[in-house]
Amino acid sequence: VGSVTGLVDVMGCEWMQYEYGSALMVPDLPGSFNMWRYEMLLPVGDGPVRYPLPVGGTPLLSAPALRRTLGTPRLWIKDETRSPSASNKDRATALVIEDGLQRGVSTITTASTGNAAVSTAFGAAAAGIRAVIFVSSDCQPEKLALMTQAGAWVFQVPEGYAAAVDLSRAAARTFGWLDRNTGVNPVTIEAKKTVAFEVWEQLGRRMPDVMIAPVGDGPTLVALDKGFSELVSCGLATRQPRLIGVQAERCQPLVRAWLGEAAKPAELDPAATVADGIAVVRPAIGDAVLEVMRRGHGGMVAVSDDALLRAVTTLAGRAGVGAEPAGAAALAGLEVAIECGLVDRLETMVLLVTGREVKAGGAPTDPRRVNMAETLDAVERVLADDS
Amino acid sequence: VGSVTGLVDVMGCEWMQYEYGSALMVPDLPGSFNMWRYEMLLPVGDGPVRYPLPVGGTPLLSAPALRRTLGTPRLWIKDETRSPSASNKDRATALVIEDGLQRGVSTITTASTGNAAVSTAFGAAAAGIRAVIFVSSDCQPEKLALMTQAGAWVFQVPEGYAAAVDLSRAAARTFGWLDRNTGVNPVTIEAKKTVAFEVWEQLGRRMPDVMIAPVGDGPTLVALDKGFSELVSCGLATRQPRLIGVQAERCQPLVRAWLGEAAKPAELDPAATVADGIAVVRPAIGDAVLEVMRRGHGGMVAVSDDALLRAVTTLAGRAGVGAEPAGAAALAGLEVAIECGLVDRLETMVLLVTGREVKAGGAPTDPRRVNMAETLDAVERVLADDS
Repeated sequence: VGSVTGLVDVMGCEWMQYEYGSALMVPDLPGSFNMWRYEMLLPVGDGPVRYPLPVGGTPLLSAPALRRTLGTPRLWIKDETRSPSASNKDRATALVIEDGLQRGVSTITTASTGNAAVSTAFGAAAAGIRAVIFVSSDCQPEKLALMTQAGAWVFQVPEGYAAAVDLSRAAARTFGWLDRNTGVNPVTIEAKKTVAFEVWEQLGRRMPDVMIAPVGDGPTLVALDKGFSELVSCGLATRQPRLIGVQAERCQPLVRAWLGEAAKPAELDPAATVADGIAVVRPAIGDAVLEVMRRGHGGMVAVSDDALLRAVTTLAGRAGVGAEPAGAAALAGLEVAIECGLVDRLETMVLLVTGREVKAGGAPTDPRRVNMAETLDAVERVLADDS
Repeated sequence: VGSVTGLVDVMGCEWMQYEYGSALMVPDLPGSFNMWRYEMLLPVGDGPVRYPLPVGGTPLLSAPALRRTLGTPRLWIKDETRSPSASNKDRATALVIEDGLQRGVSTITTASTGNAAVSTAFGAAAAGIRAVIFVSSDCQPEKLALMTQAGAWVFQVPEGYAAAVDLSRAAARTFGWLDRNTGVNPVTIEAKKTVAFEVWEQLGRRMPDVMIAPVGDGPTLVALDKGFSELVSCGLATRQPRLIGVQAERCQPLVRAWLGEAAKPAELDPAATVADGIAVVRPAIGDAVLEVMRRGHGGMVAVSDDALLRAVTTLAGRAGVGAEPAGAAALAGLEVAIECGLVDRLETMVLLVTGREVKAGGAPTDPRRVNMAETLDAVERVLADDS
């Protein structure tokens, strides 16, 4: 029921605009702490939400043992591993599908080899629509098992990931499918901005001083900036928190661009880092990331693989939160940010833990649902059997 | 703040008793939908809860696509995979640790090779206490990695799982540790009964007709019965739902006992089924399971491994819920229960999906924290270095 009044371009990333005002933020209602409570600031229609999985409303953890270990008494963890498929991708999946259900579109597509693909497969299954996912040929077997377990159609694209993205986007245009590709559909930014609203509400309607998040393609960080800025636009806050973006040392195009430096080849090698979830050589909305960083007073830091694995262990051992390496990057980044003076230990800081990996649960890959494709014709031929 | 007035023995399983009344069930308060909202019916002290992870308040999913597939218009899924370590074990872990924090006990122990061990390790880490876990020597490497990642001390017991349970219980008695072993500590039943309270609240303060749950050692099913019966004791409901317990065909001691038949050797082989989470030859509180089944009008059914794997796929593909085979057993059991007339398709039915498996997130096993032990002396020697 949010009235979108227009779109603003943020360096290639489209931001939906609303008639901002404090009435858009609803009071706390019993059982309402999920993403849909922000419907006045989301592009959803009137009437009940049709998407059937509860999404959002993830915990903000006070993590007392971790606070003691780090000497950071006002540290919080926003734990997105509690999402339906265990990552923050579920917010974007939910809103894109809700949008599709309202418009009668019953197929969603994305290119991904990771959490976005798993999230799309499970979200489409819950909503009773079809997911068509494009992956590169080296996609992990367990990820394929998860996707086909949820009934998704998977196409392996021999030319690699960039070709998979092109084919998925072409399919969306040609067949009228929902386009869930990262950074392409402005609805994904709208969904992910709700993390900022939740953090503000969970802190008692206060802004943190700084929020730290992993950055790959860029939507998570850009959406945080949009969410916090909308709270200011609504007159509910007077300032935004600083944002710190974290990349892996072995794939840090945005950190180098932020510093105005050229990245070395060893800093652009996505296969070389354990943080596959944020290892992106050409970030989908990298210019928008740099633009929102420029507007704020935050920064970007790179972390080693050793530090990422240590962060996984520290999150588990001092906060009881299980994360994949990319999901734990905010903690590794915090330590670097403290060292270089970007963050003070006494500030109110929020670490965004974006996700963990789940197992396929014993059900094997359905080979009928995994096919090779180089063209839309090949995709159409395979799916012809699905009607 | 629940006033425990005594203990009642239910065939070897201790049930805490309270002064029951409708005032013990609190009204809905903003942000209060978690396990601790039932504090009046839990053995917790006054003052704020110290356990730092939000537990309980898991979704009750309407699963529209699954309803259509099965022709069960009033089916619901209680999705415990949204728990902190992705299984319903987290409820018991939380309440046992909360009890320990109140009494100043700072070590928790359990024997387990599965979700209970992972839950204990992560829960202890969050609370800043020590976990000491006893496993058999064939424990999966990934489970060990998860446990040590969270900082738990793990002892491999060469004589096998039964010896691991004995050693864990002896350690709890000798060293004054919290005993989290399944079915031993009555606090674990108190914690798991909150699932029944939540289901009743989520259905609008109504009882379902039937609830279906996997059964291994027994606490989950016994606790459901206790929770529903307490709602009747409080005067908030007039009848309990029927309970259907589900076991794997290849390890079904309780189904055979319920039917009054002798189990064949092929029906007592825990290593032979994919449902390792419920494959227990000598259930810890099996007599209590049979007793609560006798009091009600439910039943027990066994399901094949093929049916379990199909249930995993159907839950993923029609409800968007990822589960391990044991976690999906309720769905497999529902299909058998409908076939044999135990459940009618038009009834209000709740499937308890108990858990999913998570991955270790790239951090390897810490070998210093994994040791062999056959005696308490050996345990003490290793842990002497930890102080």
